[in-house]
Amino acid sequence: MGKKILCVGLVCLDIINVVDKYPEEDTDSRCLSQRWQRGGNASNSCTVLSLLGAPCAFMGSLSAGPVANFITSDFSSHDIDVSGVVWQLKGQTPCACCVVCLSSGSRTVVLSDTNLPDVTAEDFTKVDLTQFKWIHWEGRNAEEQLKMIQRVDKYNSSLPQQQRIAVSVEIEKTREPLYQLFPHGDVVFVSKDVARQFGFHSAEDAVKGLYPRVKQGAVLICAWAEQGADALGPDGIVVHSDAFPPETVVDTLGAGDTFNAAVLYTLSNGGTLQEALTFGCKVAGRKCGFHGYDNIGECFGEK
Amino acid sequence: MGKKILCVGLVCLDIINVVDKYPEEDTDSRCLSQRWQRGGNASNSCTVLSLLGAPCAFMGSLSAGPVANFITSDFSSHDIDVSGVVWQLKGQTPCACCVVCLSSGSRTVVLSDTNLPDVTAEDFTKVDLTQFKWIHWEGRNAEEQLKMIQRVDKYNSSLPQQQRIAVSVEIEKTREPLYQLFPHGDVVFVSKDVARQFGFHSAEDAVKGLYPRVKQGAVLICAWAEQGADALGPDGIVVHSDAFPPETVVDTLGAGDTFNAAVLYTLSNGGTLQEALTFGCKVAGRKCGFHGYDNIGECFGEK
Repeated sequence: MGKKILCVGLVCLDIINVVDKYPEEDTDSRCLSQRWQRGGNASNSCTVLSLLGAPCAFMGSLSAGPVANFITSDFSSHDIDVSGVVWQLKGQTPCACCVVCLSSGSRTVVLSDTNLPDVTAEDFTKVDLTQFKWIHWEGRNAEEQLKMIQRVDKYNSSLPQQQRIAVSVEIEKTREPLYQLFPHGDVVFVSKDVARQFGFHSAEDAVKGLYPRVKQGAVLICAWAEQGADALGPDGIVVHSDAFPPETVVDTLGAGDTFNAAVLYTLSNGGTLQEALTFGCKVAGRKCGFHGYDNIGECFGEK
Repeated sequence: MGKKILCVGLVCLDIINVVDKYPEEDTDSRCLSQRWQRGGNASNSCTVLSLLGAPCAFMGSLSAGPVANFITSDFSSHDIDVSGVVWQLKGQTPCACCVVCLSSGSRTVVLSDTNLPDVTAEDFTKVDLTQFKWIHWEGRNAEEQLKMIQRVDKYNSSLPQQQRIAVSVEIEKTREPLYQLFPHGDVVFVSKDVARQFGFHSAEDAVKGLYPRVKQGAVLICAWAEQGADALGPDGIVVHSDAFPPETVVDTLGAGDTFNAAVLYTLSNGGTLQEALTFGCKVAGRKCGFHGYDNIGECFGEK
């Protein structure tokens, strides 16, 4: 049994209501269809990793109840190890009501109050690091996450190179405290939103301009929707992949999480940066052509 | 163990998002609070009957899955017998995403596609009628419901008066096919909406004007929000109760179902029509002063 990839971050329930017209206030209407989907960046990336064939695990918070029941049963049906889930006694598992409007193409999201505590460095001390070859953090409570990464760094320092755990971080939200994560990943994913916030207008400019923030030897990756993705590693050469849009875009929810997972999958199996980027764009592009994730297994999975 | 009251109709999940401002299309927002509540008229009336202290049962459709899990566990925590639930193999258990806006007082509801089949007269043949003293139908698939009532009529015809099952129907939605239920209840609840559709402007006018539609000896009841409720029985005397509004209206969801349950409770225990009407208005009014139903037990319950 190979070592696993662990993703640390959010899991929530997305209730997706597809309508033909955005509901006016104070009316009753019926949606065309409704589906329940496990969401959250780290949680989605686990789904894709598992569908591609990589053993993986999720670490994040849940609060017992019907939402958590749905989520754990969905994790389990996707063969994702949830032994690292922290069951919080306070707060609700987040649940988002999403209205997807076919006529306007809009997505309106009402997220529940996020009163559920994030996992802490203390929680992370209970993780058996020997099980993992790669740990990925979705940037959230950065101070705590830095301490978790420090634990991995310390663990790694006593091991030969090939037994060390690779560390990746995702900086997606434009929140100042998350930017302290830049120098702490072997692989750093930065979003188009964050790149723009820093004043960059393309993925290439972003990886060049933000590269001084990452640690020595690290890889910085930025995906830019229809324009594909760029990456820059220690050799100083910017690598690019075009996007692979599907014939018809059906569902872009979680496309970024799919890209991240496909990149991690390739790199953790020894692929090159160019291979990882191209595979990331291919899987993410294909995913936009169908609802949810399950077809990824059929198109790209090992099994 | 006394005989039970059976309510036949809809159960669904209401996800209630409380917001301070109605969300604009294509935005992301966070709600102030979110709660999950079992909904549906017949289902709500069961909750109130049970809280008041009446043994009761629910009959309606469910489809296995997380929504049904939430619902069955909530039924069970309210001591409501669900042995009459029909587990459908096709369709989804309905789930409504509700946005309750504090600043405007609006309620916006997006109900999922109701592709779940209703229970049929065939399903109803499996119900052991000897368990029940009263059966209440929320008007839905009227043709099938008429056949169910015919079964009860046939059962009753062989029994002495005091052992017969009383039949009540609720005609809430302004849908023509439901109006064929008028002559089939010992007690008929007609909504303000339906009364208005028939051109009536008060509960008194409605019960007088619609009385020719009910069967001989029946009671017709119409509640009219802040104006209380009126009823008319075979003695030709209109009975009235004022409303009992709470100091602060907090939650009017299910107030009508509460009224119906409190009326059924009183009548099924041998109370007079006036007692039933007054108790219905009292319980429904009090209910509007708190969220959900559970306080009803403390205020009015036998236990």
